[in-house]
Amino acid sequence: MPRKLIIDTDGVSDDVRAISLALQHPDVEVVAITTVHGCVPVKQATANVNRTIRANGIQGSIPVYEGASRSLLNLQKDTTVSDFFGKDGVGDRPTEFPESDSDDYKASGDGIAALALIRLVQEHPDATLVCIGPLTNLALALQLEENFAAAPQKVVIMGGNYYGVGNVSGVSSAEYNFHGDPEAADIVLRELKCPVTVVPWEAFFFRSMEENEVDFHAHLRYDTPLANFLSTATRVGRIRFEAVGRQYAYCDEIAIATAINEERVVLESKSLVVAVELSGTITRGQVVVDWVEQMWAAPGEVKPLDEEPRRRINFVTVYNVTLVDKWMHAVTSGSGHFD
Amino acid sequence: MPRKLIIDTDGVSDDVRAISLALQHPDVEVVAITTVHGCVPVKQATANVNRTIRANGIQGSIPVYEGASRSLLNLQKDTTVSDFFGKDGVGDRPTEFPESDSDDYKASGDGIAALALIRLVQEHPDATLVCIGPLTNLALALQLEENFAAAPQKVVIMGGNYYGVGNVSGVSSAEYNFHGDPEAADIVLRELKCPVTVVPWEAFFFRSMEENEVDFHAHLRYDTPLANFLSTATRVGRIRFEAVGRQYAYCDEIAIATAINEERVVLESKSLVVAVELSGTITRGQVVVDWVEQMWAAPGEVKPLDEEPRRRINFVTVYNVTLVDKWMHAVTSGSGHFD
Amino acid sequence: MPRKLIIDTDGVSDDVRAISLALQHPDVEVVAITTVHGCVPVKQATANVNRTIRANGIQGSIPVYEGASRSLLNLQKDTTVSDFFGKDGVGDRPTEFPESDSDDYKASGDGIAALALIRLVQEHPDATLVCIGPLTNLALALQLEENFAAAPQKVVIMGGNYYGVGNVSGVSSAEYNFHGDPEAADIVLRELKCPVTVVPWEAFFFRSMEENEVDFHAHLRYDTPLANFLSTATRVGRIRFEAVGRQYAYCDEIAIATAINEERVVLESKSLVVAVELSGTITRGQVVVDWVEQMWAAPGEVKPLDEEPRRRINFVTVYNVTLVDKWMHAVTSGSGHFD
Amino acid sequence: MPRKLIIDTDGVSDDVRAISLALQHPDVEVVAITTVHGCVPVKQATANVNRTIRANGIQGSIPVYEGASRSLLNLQKDTTVSDFFGKDGVGDRPTEFPESDSDDYKASGDGIAALALIRLVQEHPDATLVCIGPLTNLALALQLEENFAAAPQKVVIMGGNYYGVGNVSGVSSAEYNFHGDPEAADIVLRELKCPVTVVPWEAFFFRSMEENEVDFHAHLRYDTPLANFLSTATRVGRIRFEAVGRQYAYCDEIAIATAINEERVVLESKSLVVAVELSGTITRGQVVVDWVEQMWAAPGEVKPLDEEPRRRINFVTVYNVTLVDKWMHAVTSGSGHFD
Ligand SMILES: [Ca+2]
Ligand SMILES: [Ca+2]
Ligand SMILES: [Ca+2]
Ligand SMILES: [Ca+2]
Repeated sequence: MPRKLIIDTDGVSDDVRAISLALQHPDVEVVAITTVHGCVPVKQATANVNRTIRANGIQGSIPVYEGASRSLLNLQKDTTVSDFFGKDGVGDRPTEFPESDSDDYKASGDGIAALALIRLVQEHPDATLVCIGPLTNLALALQLEENFAAAPQKVVIMGGNYYGVGNVSGVSSAEYNFHGDPEAADIVLRELKCPVTVVPWEAFFFRSMEENEVDFHAHLRYDTPLANFLSTATRVGRIRFEAVGRQYAYCDEIAIATAINEERVVLESKSLVVAVELSGTITRGQVVVDWVEQMWAAPGEVKPLDEEPRRRINFVTVYNVTLVDKWMHAVTSGSGHFD
Repeated sequence: MPRKLIIDTDGVSDDVRAISLALQHPDVEVVAITTVHGCVPVKQATANVNRTIRANGIQGSIPVYEGASRSLLNLQKDTTVSDFFGKDGVGDRPTEFPESDSDDYKASGDGIAALALIRLVQEHPDATLVCIGPLTNLALALQLEENFAAAPQKVVIMGGNYYGVGNVSGVSSAEYNFHGDPEAADIVLRELKCPVTVVPWEAFFFRSMEENEVDFHAHLRYDTPLANFLSTATRVGRIRFEAVGRQYAYCDEIAIATAINEERVVLESKSLVVAVELSGTITRGQVVVDWVEQMWAAPGEVKPLDEEPRRRINFVTVYNVTLVDKWMHAVTSGSGHFD
Repeated sequence: MPRKLIIDTDGVSDDVRAISLALQHPDVEVVAITTVHGCVPVKQATANVNRTIRANGIQGSIPVYEGASRSLLNLQKDTTVSDFFGKDGVGDRPTEFPESDSDDYKASGDGIAALALIRLVQEHPDATLVCIGPLTNLALALQLEENFAAAPQKVVIMGGNYYGVGNVSGVSSAEYNFHGDPEAADIVLRELKCPVTVVPWEAFFFRSMEENEVDFHAHLRYDTPLANFLSTATRVGRIRFEAVGRQYAYCDEIAIATAINEERVVLESKSLVVAVELSGTITRGQVVVDWVEQMWAAPGEVKPLDEEPRRRINFVTVYNVTLVDKWMHAVTSGSGHFD
Repeated sequence: MPRKLIIDTDGVSDDVRAISLALQHPDVEVVAITTVHGCVPVKQATANVNRTIRANGIQGSIPVYEGASRSLLNLQKDTTVSDFFGKDGVGDRPTEFPESDSDDYKASGDGIAALALIRLVQEHPDATLVCIGPLTNLALALQLEENFAAAPQKVVIMGGNYYGVGNVSGVSSAEYNFHGDPEAADIVLRELKCPVTVVPWEAFFFRSMEENEVDFHAHLRYDTPLANFLSTATRVGRIRFEAVGRQYAYCDEIAIATAINEERVVLESKSLVVAVELSGTITRGQVVVDWVEQMWAAPGEVKPLDEEPRRRINFVTVYNVTLVDKWMHAVTSGSGHFD
């Protein structure tokens, strides 16, 4: 039986790679994709998702719902729209395969993403929700429908941090997706009652900062249409990292891989009691871990929590990079070797 | 020529161990000790320091100046007075050697610590200032005398964090000393113009959380008066850690050891651009690192900073635990084997 | 042609009086009522509204939509549920006329208030929206549908302040409704593009603090079923104010009266550029006025604003208390003398 | 017996007028003047004070102590240095009488203002301390010497607000002097144990915004050297206000007048329980009044406070403008008619 995924995405460079992994993996059925503002405006995210579906040779059977065009509070200071991955977020080569099409900008699904999510998790109680953009759509779903909190089988989130490593600016300790909607991140981590696994920024950061065994760009060098598209979609970001002697490693891909097979993909994780700072001048959007609770637990012990509304979240600290890389090779080469 | 140290301390358990290291180490001349509020009220810190000087067999030649009895803002929520190491901060055995004495509560030095520090760094331009309590005295010195910023040869600080690991409560990402006076920490890190080395909480935390090669309590088992005193001074804390299967590792001792011989003691460090959060609901007092600047520097590169008032601080990430432990054995055994 | 009103309410003491004014006033057509959490849980608000409609002798033709059961962020510290006006918010006399009924707890309208509001303002472009509870429903409507911002003909809000007068606790400068959902208040004031009139807390406060010509309780002494009901609904609050020698003056009633006939009801107002503080320790939820802009405008001048997203809001500073009182007498006496 | 005053000032336009009132008033003995950063750097404040003493024909017998050159936290965002009253803060006419002199830049008193204040209030327990600049010097005195809190007979402060009226920028509800050092304002209001009277910004604001009976510029038109100097010192500010059809009314003068004779000068005041917001995004530095406590006190009742560290402060709401204006005429005309 395939793993059902619902993907919530801001539709840029590594999202596109990650979505392709989900679309190509033989164990996965993508039930729907919802889009959200983030690195590009939500309209562009929708367009990129539709183009990616076409690049993967899928024929329109996956509904795409357009979501929030702005964060809950819509504050200028939280905006994360950026041309870091190109103005269109996927390398700025609209005429390359699959050529960008004005129809891509139309969401195929009816109604806004938040309402679609509420309905989808009811219709597919066995689906895993994977979020690889700001969490606005989920937060709205929680605000509109109390039962949403316990409805998904599992939620996997790319976002946040556990060591305060920020990646938006030098005066912010927030990770990009959480920076893009701190209130949404807070609501989602605090209110979801189903199992939650977070793939924090540090999962990417520590890999990119260290020498490592994997060539993260190798899978893009196959001479296939999909490899070419993903190479284009990631080229601007790759150039930036190469310029300082680092690799553009996997990020959103880890979240999708975790959603596909958490047992094999996650090598180490921590069960952390966390909160999101909303008021700090330079810490707005940062995840704050209760390390005191960790220090006074015996090694290996997971202590019960006495105080509501605190809850534990599973943070991925080490993932199986070799496996994910193998999967990405299978995606871009078309070899089908996912195992 | 001996290394001159001026020690600013809140005078509890590991401070007492750390001060003893400074007093016993043959390469060190302790110029003066200043006290500050912290884990115990400043009066008790003064008493503990005087008792420690007596425990080390030193005859009154080291002036002790009493400092701030409260943080700069004197906010209830920042208070860190605690009986974690006993009500007196040193094991609550006042009749054991060296018996507590009402004279211990009197500072031998004239005037408050902030003014003494301003004068002392002028008189001893070759002295290193080591701070192992909240940074109130230093902040006051900076507020009262602009020239203080560049006057010390070096400042070594035990306090803060670089990965947001807090140790006061589950809803604070501040380290104890910085929690005790966030504004002072902010002022000191932002304004000092001399070299600054920070020994962050993580230097202790990662050691205490991991299995490791060193028996941190071994040096307390010698049958000497000083070993007995330090064993008493640390007993309450040691019991707490042992109860959860961990060791009470070194903390303030690392800062003193770093001040004595940074080259040998510090194995790895990071040059970080940092700020202290003052406004956060759960991050007040946390150090925020500019990790973006690190990510876009080439490996090994230390980038010049273009914006004032940002500055780099040296954070100790790995220290030579074997060397410090050897020194502590030399202190408590009286062997004199510091090399 | 009657004035169409859509009323958003947390359904307690003065809401019930204010709704009765709308229901009885000959110039008004109440299109719909939406409920929201506030002084009582939203379910109780719905019940109180339905009971009030029955008390006014209206036969079920006004749809009631149930709205948000919690503030946008759902933070414990923002909660405003209180038994200030009785546990049920309307005097705790469920068996008095009109006897409380289990059916009252069921909203007659389909779907949540936020979605209903989006639809209603499209269907009734000539309706005025009057908000006399926390602004959660409006904020959700704005988040879900960008066009909602310009859709209402006018919005009248009871809430907020312009002189920082708070009424929830001694350590908060927020007014009750804004305290109950600061983020919603911020979103609503910042994003609405239609005309907005705010009736701030000070409109009530200054009346209650001063000796004044009006006996605010006189209209409750008629021997009519509606007078009796409103007397019951307000009795707990009245007792509290009388105990300290003050009157329980009009509050939500002013907002409804303003929505009915702003020209006659509002005697003085200020056109202010405002923002809502979200981060302050004791100012969270307070409205902050740009008084500098006022000082450098010539007397009477209303300066154009150069910076988005700042906008002007009309704040009622003095209202026609005699007129509103006359209307309330007409409501409770059944005299029909509204003119 | 003369009223002894110690004046702490940032030495600009209205400070200079206010100091002249103190120097000329027959009932006053100015014990000392201390300077502080504010509208101009502290060095310039010192120079302006010395020049003002000369303009008043006083022969060097009043010691001037230079104080803090920066706020406690020294944050860029708090800076209030401005050329609002001219680059030198007193009209930019250094060659006019009394010609500016390089000696003016030297403080005649020994040691910094904070230490001088500690000593002065001990030596003159009958002196009133009047603060008409940011409160940095007082806060430092409180931090350095606990006994300072109860030592002054009375402290009169020009600064803060009770209705949240800010005057620095459109996105700050802080009054100028409190904006210039929010932490100092917080410490001073929270910790002083002697009687404190605050002359808030609204005392000036409401006068300047309204038509009123007094011609605030008339006293500057006498043909005396002092009138000419004060006319020069205030000319830049007067022009600004006149340009928008308002008067440059009295400000720091009210504080000095209050210190001279509170009984005659203060017509109405409120005893308020207050706190200073330090964390708000747009409310940092604003005074927050506990209006709830006011509402639930009977009219005229002053309720005892149950919670430390809350305390009552006397806020001047209406002052005797005719009396103060008469005094200013006596100052500038040399008529001696102070009664
Ligand atoms: Ca993404
Ligand atoms: Ca210590
Ligand atoms: Ca209401
Ligand atoms: Ca001044």
